[in-house]
Amino acid sequence: MTTCWVHAADNSGFPLQNLPYGIFSRRGEFPRVGVAIGDQVLDLGVLAARGVLPGRWFASGTLNAFLSAGPRVWHEVRERLLGLLGDASQRPAVLPALVPMTEALMHLPFGVADLVRFQASIEHATNVGRMFRPPSDPLPRNWPQMPVGQYGRASSVVVSGTPIVRPSGQLRGLEGADPVFGPSARLDLSAEIGYVVGVPSAPPYGPGTDDFEDHVFGVVLACTWRAHDIAAWESTPLGPFLGQFATSVSPWVLPLAALEPARVEPPVQDPPPLPYLKTTRPWGLNITLRMELNGRVVSRPPFSTQYWTGPQLFAHSSVSGAPLRTGDLLTSGPVSGPARSQFGTFLELTWNGRDPLGVPDGTERVFLRDGDVVRVTASASGPEGVRLSLGEAVGVVHPAV
Amino acid sequence: MTTCWVHAADNSGFPLQNLPYGIFSRRGEFPRVGVAIGDQVLDLGVLAARGVLPGRWFASGTLNAFLSAGPRVWHEVRERLLGLLGDASQRPAVLPALVPMTEALMHLPFGVADLVRFQASIEHATNVGRMFRPPSDPLPRNWPQMPVGQYGRASSVVVSGTPIVRPSGQLRGLEGADPVFGPSARLDLSAEIGYVVGVPSAPPYGPGTDDFEDHVFGVVLACTWRAHDIAAWESTPLGPFLGQFATSVSPWVLPLAALEPARVEPPVQDPPPLPYLKTTRPWGLNITLRMELNGRVVSRPPFSTQYWTGPQLFAHSSVSGAPLRTGDLLTSGPVSGPARSQFGTFLELTWNGRDPLGVPDGTERVFLRDGDVVRVTASASGPEGVRLSLGEAVGVVHPAV
Repeated sequence: MTTCWVHAADNSGFPLQNLPYGIFSRRGEFPRVGVAIGDQVLDLGVLAARGVLPGRWFASGTLNAFLSAGPRVWHEVRERLLGLLGDASQRPAVLPALVPMTEALMHLPFGVADLVRFQASIEHATNVGRMFRPPSDPLPRNWPQMPVGQYGRASSVVVSGTPIVRPSGQLRGLEGADPVFGPSARLDLSAEIGYVVGVPSAPPYGPGTDDFEDHVFGVVLACTWRAHDIAAWESTPLGPFLGQFATSVSPWVLPLAALEPARVEPPVQDPPPLPYLKTTRPWGLNITLRMELNGRVVSRPPFSTQYWTGPQLFAHSSVSGAPLRTGDLLTSGPVSGPARSQFGTFLELTWNGRDPLGVPDGTERVFLRDGDVVRVTASASGPEGVRLSLGEAVGVVHPAV
Repeated sequence: MTTCWVHAADNSGFPLQNLPYGIFSRRGEFPRVGVAIGDQVLDLGVLAARGVLPGRWFASGTLNAFLSAGPRVWHEVRERLLGLLGDASQRPAVLPALVPMTEALMHLPFGVADLVRFQASIEHATNVGRMFRPPSDPLPRNWPQMPVGQYGRASSVVVSGTPIVRPSGQLRGLEGADPVFGPSARLDLSAEIGYVVGVPSAPPYGPGTDDFEDHVFGVVLACTWRAHDIAAWESTPLGPFLGQFATSVSPWVLPLAALEPARVEPPVQDPPPLPYLKTTRPWGLNITLRMELNGRVVSRPPFSTQYWTGPQLFAHSSVSGAPLRTGDLLTSGPVSGPARSQFGTFLELTWNGRDPLGVPDGTERVFLRDGDVVRVTASASGPEGVRLSLGEAVGVVHPAV
């Protein structure tokens, strides 16, 4: 396997096989495109200005221009980066463009066009059904037939580290009383993966599952903050609205190319999906997430057991002819595995508050308190046992205003 | 009352008291900002380039820069336009900037940031409840307490005249059978008004109802195309998703300033709303909509009876701290009045297909057929009996692809 001449990159979460893209700046500088390698950020803006890299996409405060450039360009740039970082003779040309990660301030990596929230995990959907709709069948009838989803607020997508302010809103009154206004008392974060659309579609034609790799650039962590009490009261008849109030994304977008070694057969789908949801190449992804609350690991949700895969979310989201745009973010919804230790929300981990979680300071949690720090990380299987980091999505809960 | 020297403007839907903003071009030209006056478009790009108008907002293919400039600028430009068009001595300076509407191609007036769909009409909500949830109370318990809403797909907002292609999607199987994939057979258009946000908010603080005029620039027609059969199957548990597949907006944005004479007391709200939804100034709006199907008027929905007003939709949409952005579009949902002749959807007009509507060619409709032309227009009360046009939202239904 090719190794990287950048110090310690081979043994990091950002080896040569990863090369995720983000937007960074040092203090007082314009944000621009960078690629994570080891504990460094490779400044693509500098490399392009010096003619070491092709193109005009990198002196930009968002990845959108590069995302829209399409698979040929994505491939060409990746190949060039592999050459530059895998060949020690390129060191003199590349070294001036390396910035220590510790000096890099990371920004939202792309401008979000439309945000689509799916519910792709059958374990999560089943858990929610068991908690809130017993004794009826935990899965709604349409669930095994289509990836159920809804739109979210694109402006509420923030980069990891952005403060999460506890929202206030209308809460159901006790025993049929009028609703009250106040801070959410049922604050949750769910561990999720998001697919980032690069190449727009051409309405009224919706692209198919086989067009996934021609349109979708890569994945991020996209963890949704939820106020279950706000959502519970507002959801009839149009679904949750303000209750899903923010989404923290990791600063690095992993290209699908880096995920090739992580691809696995997804779970068998029974009933078989309608033709427009059938896939010819397997797009289960061997990614493992990890949720930490105040430094304690509380869950390790596996992404490989997701019922609905990326190409299916992608095809379904535009099957009506809706235009896909550069920067569309399609999130998986909470990633939950079959075991309690693999649930992707505090709602499920505490079984709707019944089973509190211990935290390192000796207290217990049912939902999140002010000051709590939630950190979600993830890694994908790379070649030959290498782990590829998806970075992290971190949020500190601030008191309501 | 001041009159306008532009020929026939005083007796048109676009008199001096209106002055709505849009984006136009003639063949082969760059789109730029224009204002409707009589049967002409006033080219603000030309006026600004000649120094007749202040600012740098008008040589642009979207209104967004002008929208973000805020109330002081909106007021200053409007006053200047009133002076230029109300004083015949200004004719020589202005005449070169007048373009016949017949030569103007109208574009989407602003880049849509987030799309929020409300359901602000109690008559519409009640009708839907009666049709689909009898015999229970037609209004959900939360309905009189908050404007219920959901997010929509910003990329699906199109300017009036854009072809509307019948969407395909999953449809519920008959009598419990598996779903089928196919074109929607229950296609509808609803007549709606949309509020256009100009000035962003400063999270985590949500602006209040009294901040409405400091943030919201004006209104458009924003008519939503719905596939009720797609929506019915997909809506559990997260609400409609692909079933609301497009929104046709009028090319002209009426500033709130032009709507001052149209302001009326809205219906009394019982129960009284929570404090964050209370308003100090009345923002009912005396606007009458008109729906035509293939040239026949089928409904005249009154906007003045809307239960939830603009400031309430505005305050609710960001009460959780969600960031409002320039270009956010908050739609009213279907505008229905109490009488059958005032219903704002074909769903209600035909009472879910029970009572077909006659059309001019002698046939009947329950939902829309390919080739149908739906045209929604609206006018607001101006000063001294003048009617101010909101332009039109027109769509022709094209066959499924």
